Amino acid sequence: MNKQALAEEILRRFAPLDRASRFLGMRLLEVRPGHIRMSMRVTEDMLNAQQVCHGGLTFSLADTSFGYACNSHNERAFAASCSIEFLAPAHVGDELTAEANEVGYAGRTRVYDVRVTNQRGELIALFRGKSTTVKGGWIE
Amino acid sequence: MNKQALAEEILRRFAPLDRASRFLGMRLLEVRPGHIRMSMRVTEDMLNAQQVCHGGLTFSLADTSFGYACNSHNERAFAASCSIEFLAPAHVGDELTAEANEVGYAGRTRVYDVRVTNQRGELIALFRGKSTTVKGGWIE
Amino acid sequence: MNKQALAEEILRRFAPLDRASRFLGMRLLEVRPGHIRMSMRVTEDMLNAQQVCHGGLTFSLADTSFGYACNSHNERAFAASCSIEFLAPAHVGDELTAEANEVGYAGRTRVYDVRVTNQRGELIALFRGKSTTVKGGWIE
Amino acid sequence: MNKQALAEEILRRFAPLDRASRFLGMRLLEVRPGHIRMSMRVTEDMLNAQQVCHGGLTFSLADTSFGYACNSHNERAFAASCSIEFLAPAHVGDELTAEANEVGYAGRTRVYDVRVTNQRGELIALFRGKSTTVKGGWIE
Repeated sequence: MNKQALAEEILRRFAPLDRASRFLGMRLLEVRPGHIRMSMRVTEDMLNAQQVCHGGLTFSLADTSFGYACNSHNERAFAASCSIEFLAPAHVGDELTAEANEVGYAGRTRVYDVRVTNQRGELIALFRGKSTTVKGGWIE
Repeated sequence: MNKQALAEEILRRFAPLDRASRFLGMRLLEVRPGHIRMSMRVTEDMLNAQQVCHGGLTFSLADTSFGYACNSHNERAFAASCSIEFLAPAHVGDELTAEANEVGYAGRTRVYDVRVTNQRGELIALFRGKSTTVKGGWIE
Repeated sequence: MNKQALAEEILRRFAPLDRASRFLGMRLLEVRPGHIRMSMRVTEDMLNAQQVCHGGLTFSLADTSFGYACNSHNERAFAASCSIEFLAPAHVGDELTAEANEVGYAGRTRVYDVRVTNQRGELIALFRGKSTTVKGGWIE
Repeated sequence: MNKQALAEEILRRFAPLDRASRFLGMRLLEVRPGHIRMSMRVTEDMLNAQQVCHGGLTFSLADTSFGYACNSHNERAFAASCSIEFLAPAHVGDELTAEANEVGYAGRTRVYDVRVTNQRGELIALFRGKSTTVKGGWIE
């Protein structure tokens, strides 16, 4: 199987196991090895006390795209640390898109950057995630 | 009103407006100026593809306690950037507690640290959040 | 003056004022608006107890390229927060290159990413810096 | 040897090997297992273009105290990632003190927080460092 077919097959098995991202209405838009694009619509349930999308849910979208991207290589990877810069608020009804790309690796560590934008292409948040790979893969 | 009474009154008004944290079942346990303790039970809806609590939801609990803490001074504050270190997985049924404390400030910036532990006191995650204060308060 | 000429003129005035980067032997290789490339040779004075380049000095190179990049727009900008992932050690004699690029902005905040590589193009560190702009510029 | 004597003995061997921190004039003030206090005077060579202490050198002080603290347990540890919040500028002649404390660990990862203050006790920066432990110790 080539890398693209492998990444697609992993995600076909992996994504349906992820209840949390379904619970939050996330949709997988694009899969390439080390690259994922996903979206999430901001619902009323996602609003914080300031009536904008809760930062934890914007983070969740970014974190999911990162988690899918770092598992797309047929390695089992876990998030070790993440950081996020919140640049603009997201509002109810906004369609957020997260785009995760691998930017570096060394040993068992991989680093991914994620840009979260809204339906007008405005930058909402910048996320950086670092994963640790453990033994085993998703497909033998 | 003294600072403690003010912090309690702000949270009495502020917390019910936060739909996202109610949606995720968070409970406010303790309020002091610049200090918040909250909890969240890990449900099946919160599991990721690896069948542990989605990092975005652990982050959401920490981020909420940070957001409440930085608004407890009767200033309007927004999260500007956050980072999280994931140290141990949380499992379905776990009762997570987040404890947010102010660790520094300068000008319009405040920095908070949050420890997330489970019901056995084991450390699940360490979070650091930085807020920016804007004009206006919660109570006149 | 166009943006490129302005960026070059700012750096012509700004860089010589920076004693610390001269003290550490940094050299400015390329200037474009929001983009800087710099280098630094790892000397024996830069080794830590493990006999590799002190992380603080790798950080200093990245931080300088970030600082120059965010001031290249004729705004006065200060570093507010930075993070760094150390991916491989740098050794005595290595020629490190830092390349800073703007990746987002909102209001008075700008975000820059910096890649630090060695003379073989190997990735040594990934840096992310966030600046805050204050009133005034470098050239009237 | 008890833990305190061991930490002192490690630092007695470890610190003199660190050329970079001597080059920058750092002094070790206090050693306890998982806790280090160090100082550094801001010299003219440390000033950046804005005539305040270069953030990379403030970072270097914090990073050194973190590195010493995570090696004080007789484990060989390397910095994996670090973040810093710059809260106030440091000026020429300022005596900066960094105080590093362990705040959590899991498996081969340890997390340290460092506060950097000036001679008036004002908070200059908050640093968080994460180390990875490798095989071997400093004393058999």
